[in-house]
Amino acid sequence: MTLDPVVAARLKEAVGPKGFTEDAQEIAAHLVEWRGKYRGLSALMLKPQSTAEVSRILSICNETSTAVVPQGGNTGLVGGQIPFAGEVLLCTARLNRIRQLDAEGMSVITEAGVILAQLQAAADAADRYFPLSLAAEGSCTIGGNVSTNAGGVNVLRYGNMRELVLGLEVVLADGRVLDTLRTLRKDNTGYDLKQLFIGAEGTLGVVIAAALKLFPKPAERVTAFIAVPDVNSAVALLNRLQRATGGLLSAFELLPRMGVEMVLAHIPQTSDPLAAPSPWYVLAEAESGAKLPLREIVTGALSEAAEHDIVGDAVVAENETQRANLWRLRESLSEAQKYEGGSIKHDVSVPIAAIPSFLARGIAAVEKLVPGGRPVPFGHLGDGNIHFNFSVPKGGDSAAFLSRWEEINRVVHDIVHEFGGSISAEHGIGVMKRDEILRYKSAAEIETMRALKRALDPNNILNPGKVVAL
Amino acid sequence: MTLDPVVAARLKEAVGPKGFTEDAQEIAAHLVEWRGKYRGLSALMLKPQSTAEVSRILSICNETSTAVVPQGGNTGLVGGQIPFAGEVLLCTARLNRIRQLDAEGMSVITEAGVILAQLQAAADAADRYFPLSLAAEGSCTIGGNVSTNAGGVNVLRYGNMRELVLGLEVVLADGRVLDTLRTLRKDNTGYDLKQLFIGAEGTLGVVIAAALKLFPKPAERVTAFIAVPDVNSAVALLNRLQRATGGLLSAFELLPRMGVEMVLAHIPQTSDPLAAPSPWYVLAEAESGAKLPLREIVTGALSEAAEHDIVGDAVVAENETQRANLWRLRESLSEAQKYEGGSIKHDVSVPIAAIPSFLARGIAAVEKLVPGGRPVPFGHLGDGNIHFNFSVPKGGDSAAFLSRWEEINRVVHDIVHEFGGSISAEHGIGVMKRDEILRYKSAAEIETMRALKRALDPNNILNPGKVVAL
Repeated sequence: MTLDPVVAARLKEAVGPKGFTEDAQEIAAHLVEWRGKYRGLSALMLKPQSTAEVSRILSICNETSTAVVPQGGNTGLVGGQIPFAGEVLLCTARLNRIRQLDAEGMSVITEAGVILAQLQAAADAADRYFPLSLAAEGSCTIGGNVSTNAGGVNVLRYGNMRELVLGLEVVLADGRVLDTLRTLRKDNTGYDLKQLFIGAEGTLGVVIAAALKLFPKPAERVTAFIAVPDVNSAVALLNRLQRATGGLLSAFELLPRMGVEMVLAHIPQTSDPLAAPSPWYVLAEAESGAKLPLREIVTGALSEAAEHDIVGDAVVAENETQRANLWRLRESLSEAQKYEGGSIKHDVSVPIAAIPSFLARGIAAVEKLVPGGRPVPFGHLGDGNIHFNFSVPKGGDSAAFLSRWEEINRVVHDIVHEFGGSISAEHGIGVMKRDEILRYKSAAEIETMRALKRALDPNNILNPGKVVAL
Repeated sequence: MTLDPVVAARLKEAVGPKGFTEDAQEIAAHLVEWRGKYRGLSALMLKPQSTAEVSRILSICNETSTAVVPQGGNTGLVGGQIPFAGEVLLCTARLNRIRQLDAEGMSVITEAGVILAQLQAAADAADRYFPLSLAAEGSCTIGGNVSTNAGGVNVLRYGNMRELVLGLEVVLADGRVLDTLRTLRKDNTGYDLKQLFIGAEGTLGVVIAAALKLFPKPAERVTAFIAVPDVNSAVALLNRLQRATGGLLSAFELLPRMGVEMVLAHIPQTSDPLAAPSPWYVLAEAESGAKLPLREIVTGALSEAAEHDIVGDAVVAENETQRANLWRLRESLSEAQKYEGGSIKHDVSVPIAAIPSFLARGIAAVEKLVPGGRPVPFGHLGDGNIHFNFSVPKGGDSAAFLSRWEEINRVVHDIVHEFGGSISAEHGIGVMKRDEILRYKSAAEIETMRALKRALDPNNILNPGKVVAL
């Protein structure tokens, strides 16, 4: 679609000379998803600096049926932030103030364009902790985290982004401002409207600011890298460690030997922390805000587990450097996979107890389709969330392998569905899975989603075509 | 409104002979709110036993524009469960199965009519913990807990009911079944539809079943009854205890001396656990799933606080009997107030740091309106949620006092609003506060609530007139 010059002029006027760009080069970086999987086009990028400016923008867009795509850090993996049809881009980068940090009240009010790592640092400076943590934290924004209900490594203890949100300021499709920016822990005065916009990927309103929970800074943290003989043992270990620590685990990540080998081969400053190889590993972290004998509790539980042959060797980080080294093995997995050629990915979840059976069935099914395809399933076992990835067979043709993306997705997603799982645990729907969910969700679910979209965005101007098609 | 006999016949046929009653005496108990504040009327009470029956009921009601009021344990305090205009009553008592308890997976799927205390017991029997706990737990139902986003004494640690819900089975206004009954910890496949029905008081759909989180059973629990000189000290103590325990507090309740005296005067088997009276008290409880030196941590923090004159005397329960005795002082407060004549109540929340100023201003304002009115503010200080109650002046006329309910509510709510607070922290809106919220919510909020109601219940048959008027 081509943007009407009259509408463009009104939009530019609404934000003033610093509030937009038509420079193709400047816009270009916002049109490509970082892996290059999705490419869009847009002639106008708006950079509003205030709620009032966003309100004027959407008012004009709604009146003229002009489509608009909100974008935060452009780190999404499912194409939700890309303008595929020449929509106006709404960049939140200048909505970058932390409006209020209440250390006593354990809350912070921040604008959508603030980078996650900046918010983590601000909390830290106030002797508080904001627990959301994910690989993209150096560039993803709070608005994007809210709009995708971001997950990451600390969900086990602190929940998804949804659980961290106390209130939102949102501009509705017609430009009205919906202000629920309260910091209350309990509020039952009617429908909890903020929930609508969390995880809606910008299709129901544009998130301008969020009131978020803060936590006491952990006084103690124990990080262990643990060899386990199989996935069943990993699940058993999760239960043992949760029981021993009384639910103080903040992360419980699964890694296969294949993935660790890829990291050791390609990522600088990594080394195998254990003497002998093991088919599977767990990276577990427990946190306490109080001075507890947490290290003794964790090592005691690991010894007991070893007696039951649930764990083999294990190492517990002695300091922050060792801790960082252990986490590097986990955080570099996606990057290391790139060096091994194309990889086909799935971001799925199943009930935790079903993970071993799911992995066995999923790996067998893909092996049948692509003999030699290398399974690298890893991720948030503690949340039932596995990044179920496959690398191209050793020495195989990446392009030929990647051409089977949808075929393999379909087979894996059908198995996920049989286990009562989710085909998008934390990355969202965007365009990538918009039609795929039609296969797994009931007509009542899809129709209710459409009813919400029609009720809140009757002219279909907000990120149209993402999440749900009308 | 009078129920059309043809419609009544169809509804009765839909549920079979055991699935309804027209017996006025049997229905009567369901028409009166337990304090007698609200009274309704209805000629037909349906008692469906399955999702399919509820589906048929709503399909008929929707087609014939017949209004229906869902009712759980009839323990609501704001009139949400009462049929005021002869609506059909939909009693969930026979939807009473716990469908599946997955101890390993830390989840349970239960039907709406299951009593909260029964669910707590079922979790306990499986060596697990379901933390929702409130005064009405012996008769309130899970469906009501979901529909009102119930709070209670453990919100500080475990969140409101919303945070405990993993999935829902809901019958929509036209009888379609919306099944999101998954037990996943992470699922981002489109709009999170279950959120719509949590806290909607049955106005957007009828909750049939819920998938809920379970937790490890606390291995250790420390309960302390603590004298504090003023409310500022109570807030400071909250911060100290949270820091010392690393966020392991599960309850932090405020009690005024006046309230404790009422309990001691009227409730059997109660005694003052401390030697000297204190103007305020805190009942604090910390829980750990692990064997920790929790008692030493709590008593150490109390000693330190005493050195700073934040706390006076304190007692820590030595066993379950002592613990029950301390909790009886707190849980009997509402009942004890009844013996002292009429009381005017507010269920409000403000940011925690604002509680001392809010209480001072609120008490002064009511004192000005009703000299001698006795303030008995108590409740969940840890959540910022105060049951801001006033008893009739000693020897005063209850009826005359109660006649000023709305006038006093208005003054208090205006002050709550100034502090950025909520005029219904945990009891909901029902009919009691339906018009009151119009004063405090923006037009955008109210209009968005109406848009949701119209989108999900276009014929306005689901608990019409509750929460939001069209």
